[in-house]
Amino acid sequence: MRKPRPISGFPEWLPHEKLAEQHLIDVIRYVYELYGFSPLETAAIERTETLTAKGVVDKEIYALGRLREEPGERDQWEYGLHFDLTVPLARYVAMNYGHLNFPFKRYQIQKVWRGERPQEGRFREFYQADIDVIAENELPLHFDAEMPAVIHDIFCRLDIRHDIRLNHRQLLIDFYRGLEMSDEMIPAALREVDKLDKVGADGVKDSLGGLGLSDEVVASCLQLAAIRGPGVEVFEKARALGVSSPALDEVKTVGEALAQVPHTFDLGIVRGLDYYTGTIYETLLPDYPELGSICSGGRYENLASEFTNKKLPGVGISIGLSRLVSYLFAKEIWKPTRHCPTQVLVICPDEDDRPKCALIAEQLRRHGIATEVYSKAQAMKKQLRYADRKGIPQVLFPHKYSETDPTVEVKTLASGEQVTVPLPEWAEKNRGPAAPADRSGR
Amino acid sequence: MRKPRPISGFPEWLPHEKLAEQHLIDVIRYVYELYGFSPLETAAIERTETLTAKGVVDKEIYALGRLREEPGERDQWEYGLHFDLTVPLARYVAMNYGHLNFPFKRYQIQKVWRGERPQEGRFREFYQADIDVIAENELPLHFDAEMPAVIHDIFCRLDIRHDIRLNHRQLLIDFYRGLEMSDEMIPAALREVDKLDKVGADGVKDSLGGLGLSDEVVASCLQLAAIRGPGVEVFEKARALGVSSPALDEVKTVGEALAQVPHTFDLGIVRGLDYYTGTIYETLLPDYPELGSICSGGRYENLASEFTNKKLPGVGISIGLSRLVSYLFAKEIWKPTRHCPTQVLVICPDEDDRPKCALIAEQLRRHGIATEVYSKAQAMKKQLRYADRKGIPQVLFPHKYSETDPTVEVKTLASGEQVTVPLPEWAEKNRGPAAPADRSGR
Repeated sequence: MRKPRPISGFPEWLPHEKLAEQHLIDVIRYVYELYGFSPLETAAIERTETLTAKGVVDKEIYALGRLREEPGERDQWEYGLHFDLTVPLARYVAMNYGHLNFPFKRYQIQKVWRGERPQEGRFREFYQADIDVIAENELPLHFDAEMPAVIHDIFCRLDIRHDIRLNHRQLLIDFYRGLEMSDEMIPAALREVDKLDKVGADGVKDSLGGLGLSDEVVASCLQLAAIRGPGVEVFEKARALGVSSPALDEVKTVGEALAQVPHTFDLGIVRGLDYYTGTIYETLLPDYPELGSICSGGRYENLASEFTNKKLPGVGISIGLSRLVSYLFAKEIWKPTRHCPTQVLVICPDEDDRPKCALIAEQLRRHGIATEVYSKAQAMKKQLRYADRKGIPQVLFPHKYSETDPTVEVKTLASGEQVTVPLPEWAEKNRGPAAPADRSGR
Repeated sequence: MRKPRPISGFPEWLPHEKLAEQHLIDVIRYVYELYGFSPLETAAIERTETLTAKGVVDKEIYALGRLREEPGERDQWEYGLHFDLTVPLARYVAMNYGHLNFPFKRYQIQKVWRGERPQEGRFREFYQADIDVIAENELPLHFDAEMPAVIHDIFCRLDIRHDIRLNHRQLLIDFYRGLEMSDEMIPAALREVDKLDKVGADGVKDSLGGLGLSDEVVASCLQLAAIRGPGVEVFEKARALGVSSPALDEVKTVGEALAQVPHTFDLGIVRGLDYYTGTIYETLLPDYPELGSICSGGRYENLASEFTNKKLPGVGISIGLSRLVSYLFAKEIWKPTRHCPTQVLVICPDEDDRPKCALIAEQLRRHGIATEVYSKAQAMKKQLRYADRKGIPQVLFPHKYSETDPTVEVKTLASGEQVTVPLPEWAEKNRGPAAPADRSGR
């Protein structure tokens, strides 16, 4: 016998925490579906050739062997665990191309695995919650505005203040080109501008100068990076600075489509520009700035060029669900108190009452009210302590209940309020969530 | 570029199939929660010493390496993927003992992995949907009746005919002992009785005789194995056969608690008796007998003796979710037609109408109605074909809609019925699912 120890980087929640995480997942899923995204789930396992198809992977990938084999029996790894949900999506879309309808809107909320050194808020196994819209050949620009709309909706429902920031990769590149930067210089300059938050304008000024850029060019770069505001406003400011790029019109279009959604185009955002080809997103939580971007994404020209000849442009965004929830717990911003979904604990005064209690529980459940009957006819104090410890909101005393007179007493533990009512009436008035609707058309 | 191929044994669903699987998961989860089971999720990865703690494991376990290492660099496997949800539960309960409230009722719906040769309906990655009740020291018998009640509730809601069968391990053993079988003979005899379905009574008679049992003993074994019926009836029949065992009283108690739940005690069930110590469960679907038991479980004396000194008896049951859903698809019993959760497709007559369409969509979503606006102002035929292909039930024509007169036309595609109504009225009348309730008490 050996007492088990936790595995570093593989978080597991206690029941009250899992209930809160589950709520977060449920809200995300609910909103994703409201916008018509289909659930998708890919296998946790991919061929290693798929995982590395985009070239060198800087994530530590877990490879799979067999416990029955000695590790040395194997020449090479054939399979590994996925490290994100984008590579599996690309592989899935290429593989099932003929069966999908485009634009293909999918959401995917799954665990991913990365064998990196675990740190605070950084795990080896964690949830991502992605949406992407994949089109054939051409993806209309209004989808770029849908991503922030969805994210805004989710964070509003969770009552979490959020600051959605956008930028456009091509706008920066076109502007830098207009300043007569070479194609080799542009990424180097962007890397320096990316440090703006850390080293400040003066620091970036020095390092851009160090790259051999003239004072004038450096000043323009910094002026552009300082522009922020809603899309329509940023369009005007950037145009005033002399930006001339089709990307700028895209900023305007996306900004107009986001008229109802609070957002900030921030031309100083550089992160993620390597991968994306158009709009990019970051989401900061102003109350918890140290979290960094909790929800990022962007537009890409071609999802699956490694796997198919079809041109499949897309736009997507991903919520760092595990990172967010672990932060909310660690900082005690979320302090879940319920350890089970049970809404009502039926007190069992005597084992002879158990059939009656079971009958009451069954009626409550038929009204969507999660119910337990206490496990043993113990002292009342013990039964109440159980409800209290598990955070069960209400207890029901069945003493007065009989088949002819369905009167029960229900006590709400938080307020101490106690009512004596006929069970059917109380159950009707306190209906729980409806059973899930079947939307599969089966 | 290389066209990706599927990996045998790792099923992935198309969007319409995933929607149906998701519904199955949602119903299972809903019912599990109605009975007060808490969601639990353990890491996919366990230490190999945990996975093998119960001794030799007859499942093929996937072990984890690092893609960056050559397989030969490693001396031994440290981690592997879990192959069921019971070992992780035992490890979790032992590890978090001080933080849990007992009886601990948890459900766990997660993928598990087994590196076995894939066959029809048998996968290497698949979902299990488990519930277990774990108590300290003593687990009241009424929990044995809760398992079939929960399963019955689930299959009723799914409209799937089911036949829940129970047996009691100790009853068989005590009966065989009463026939003066030796402790070595009992498992051998049980193995033969287990073949009853395959080889028939005569076959079993021969093979039991071959073990050296007298004709009289063989006849008694077969008589016992032929007893089936509701618990209370089986109690009487078994007693009449001369069974005298505390287990028989347990059958009666569980049978009485199951008065409202259709069930069959079947004293011919032997499967799973190695692991369990009391009540055992199997669930057959009479319309699909070739599926075998789709939902099995039982009572065990001690969940986690490998990990803790505490005595933690439990009872649990597990639905073979992936096996069930893949069967329902393969036999075309479930033929999902909807490829996305979208309930309403808003037609976009002209790109200038897009802001208006977006406004309409937003109002529908506020009523819980999943809505998409068509991606491009194409010919009406194309837009309708998209709705048709994706199985979207309704399309909305926004032509008449203005801020002052919110009239829209909604067409139900299946019936062809079309109504002209004010949007707020229609949305109110056709409310979709409510947003998820937060039950975490955060």
